[in-house]
Amino acid sequence: MAIKKTAATNGNGITLNDSRTKLGELDASKLIFTECKTLKAVPPPEQLKFGNVKTDYMLVTEYTPQAGWSAPEIKPYGPLSLDPACSCFQYCPNVFEGMKAYRGPDGKPRLFRPEKNMERLARSAERVALPGFDTDALLILIRCLVALESRWIPDIPGYSMYIRPTIIGTRPALGVAASDQNALLYVIMCPTGPYFRDATKRISLLAVGEHVRAWPGGTGGHKLGLNYAPGFLVQKAALEKGYDQVLWLLPGLEGEANGEGDRVTEAGAMNFFVVVRRSDSSDDVDVFTPPLDGTILPGVTRSSCLALLAAHNSGRFPLPGVSRERKTHPHESVITIGDLIRWAKEGRLVEAFGVGTAVAVAPIGKIGLGGLDVGEERRDELLFPDIEGLGMGQIARGLYDAITSIQTGRVAYDKWSVAC
Amino acid sequence: MAIKKTAATNGNGITLNDSRTKLGELDASKLIFTECKTLKAVPPPEQLKFGNVKTDYMLVTEYTPQAGWSAPEIKPYGPLSLDPACSCFQYCPNVFEGMKAYRGPDGKPRLFRPEKNMERLARSAERVALPGFDTDALLILIRCLVALESRWIPDIPGYSMYIRPTIIGTRPALGVAASDQNALLYVIMCPTGPYFRDATKRISLLAVGEHVRAWPGGTGGHKLGLNYAPGFLVQKAALEKGYDQVLWLLPGLEGEANGEGDRVTEAGAMNFFVVVRRSDSSDDVDVFTPPLDGTILPGVTRSSCLALLAAHNSGRFPLPGVSRERKTHPHESVITIGDLIRWAKEGRLVEAFGVGTAVAVAPIGKIGLGGLDVGEERRDELLFPDIEGLGMGQIARGLYDAITSIQTGRVAYDKWSVAC
Repeated sequence: MAIKKTAATNGNGITLNDSRTKLGELDASKLIFTECKTLKAVPPPEQLKFGNVKTDYMLVTEYTPQAGWSAPEIKPYGPLSLDPACSCFQYCPNVFEGMKAYRGPDGKPRLFRPEKNMERLARSAERVALPGFDTDALLILIRCLVALESRWIPDIPGYSMYIRPTIIGTRPALGVAASDQNALLYVIMCPTGPYFRDATKRISLLAVGEHVRAWPGGTGGHKLGLNYAPGFLVQKAALEKGYDQVLWLLPGLEGEANGEGDRVTEAGAMNFFVVVRRSDSSDDVDVFTPPLDGTILPGVTRSSCLALLAAHNSGRFPLPGVSRERKTHPHESVITIGDLIRWAKEGRLVEAFGVGTAVAVAPIGKIGLGGLDVGEERRDELLFPDIEGLGMGQIARGLYDAITSIQTGRVAYDKWSVAC
Repeated sequence: MAIKKTAATNGNGITLNDSRTKLGELDASKLIFTECKTLKAVPPPEQLKFGNVKTDYMLVTEYTPQAGWSAPEIKPYGPLSLDPACSCFQYCPNVFEGMKAYRGPDGKPRLFRPEKNMERLARSAERVALPGFDTDALLILIRCLVALESRWIPDIPGYSMYIRPTIIGTRPALGVAASDQNALLYVIMCPTGPYFRDATKRISLLAVGEHVRAWPGGTGGHKLGLNYAPGFLVQKAALEKGYDQVLWLLPGLEGEANGEGDRVTEAGAMNFFVVVRRSDSSDDVDVFTPPLDGTILPGVTRSSCLALLAAHNSGRFPLPGVSRERKTHPHESVITIGDLIRWAKEGRLVEAFGVGTAVAVAPIGKIGLGGLDVGEERRDELLFPDIEGLGMGQIARGLYDAITSIQTGRVAYDKWSVAC
């Protein structure tokens, strides 16, 4: 990806009024590049806290009813200037993506299945009635930005550069209506280490049914900014009770929350997986994750884990460290708290883990039951014994190793890893 | 309310470092006033579209971890400058209020039960883990702003100045965490006419169960910006099918949406009321609105309507145009689509209306059933016959007249109307 060539093609910001160009399409060939006068110093990797340090540049394009998408611009990272009545502040039609650029053994930056992020961003934008955009064009622009900023990717295993494409509604009026003619699309980036300091440290979850992250017919299946703020207070309460993250439950309309019928949905901002030993004498396992019923984010890592479990099972791509004889049967199916308790009682609950772009795979050590109001001395917990003393269980470790190897381009799988 | 005096007390923006002052409290006495060089021309009232024209000034105060709430400032209306990583764009911890300033017969601007908006704003902020603030101080500041800007309130019945207090999270980092140490609180205002061009024109609603506005354990009971964007697409679909607004339903987890068991929640961005004639021979009515179970916004107009219905019923404050003999029994109770259908079949469905700050009371003419996917030729509708040919039914009209009379200070009721 040749940023200089692209910028040089049309570096002056002047575009001819070509009547053949459909008004308003996002057009990567119109890229304008404004260079930073001075570049920032890259901090030592150990000082990087997720999402705090931003790189030198950002990509910005604005949608207006007069012109559609403006010529995209890569320019020095800096503040946005917006009317205080804008939808993004008032009604929150704001969507984003989480991607990472990894440094390959050849030193080149690589993206992981980026077309899936582009598709999801387009679906998210549509869900909150933001203007549509050309996903191929945006991916080209992101690859330019990553190539330009590749010095920010730490050359250390487990480190990467986090990429945050964002679209916000900028309609500057207070009537409750779609911001379908006014939007700002921008991409910012942050060099980052492991989301949790020690990737093998097992996290604890507090299962909560009083507060519900997503509901059928709601927006939990889309990557909308508005899905996250309602969790802040609950996350703080879980931390105060000594748990790392919330396990979000979905109770029915009737009856008490935190009952055995409550469905398990997501773990913090990660998709949830549980590994259950089969009741036959084999070492085979069933691996369950909740189905995409509208309450679950269709995670790229989730989809990749399901594919890799099936590929191990079929023998096409054995998971590192997992015997080829040990079958791993993936299932997208409803999981209730009652299921987890029953599997635990039967001694079949082997592993649980969360997956997502920020963490890859995060092993779960225990799940506290009963919700926010149970006194800690009376709380039941599901414990996942650390059988091998390695933090991660065998399946989580196998998926983690497979995915991170593919992400960094050390192992090839389909065309999941794309060099910039 | 003496804006000049308040500003003069500390007009230079310099505050002494008084160690007795608790760090960070919102302090109205520290108000800084920056005057506009030129004032805008007030457009003719007929050109006002809800929420498009802003007044000359806005109120702003910023919360930082170092200083808490900054000295509040009234300054020329203008853009906000914010880091693109701010929570307000990414995770949407953004809350707001809707209030109005009405011009009284004495020419003075008046607010309607503003302390209820302040309480709700504080509860909304707490729900998304924004910093707390002194509600009394904010109300003093809003009264200053309204007094300063009172020339913007059109002197025409049905017109007012809409007030939009807003708090947004400004934590400039991408980690998914509360913006409890970084926020911006601002108040902007727009002169406005009736929300619907003709206040007596009856609106049509399309009942939708496939998309759910709010659910138990969700955030529908708080005034969060994030409750609104998910409705944009559905609202557009309803408009395309010829309906003015969506009637939001809440189906259970099991079974098809749009069944008779679906609960009725809100009408567009309004609270929903339905008037049902009693089955005895009297002319008395039961007036139902859904209970505050966490899915319903605790509207100030909703609460006022319930109080006025009870006051009519007890004889304390007869509703204009409603016979004192005609009892109006208010109820906060679950209403299902099946209830509406049954009441219609029994000939007892008299009126329905939406209520809210923007509209006061908006009469409903019909409700389309079956959700988004029913062909229009096959759709069942609940019709509310316009018996008196006046648009509004007797109860809606009585409430509308009572509330607007109290808002403008023409009639006194408790201390609901407050002069600035």
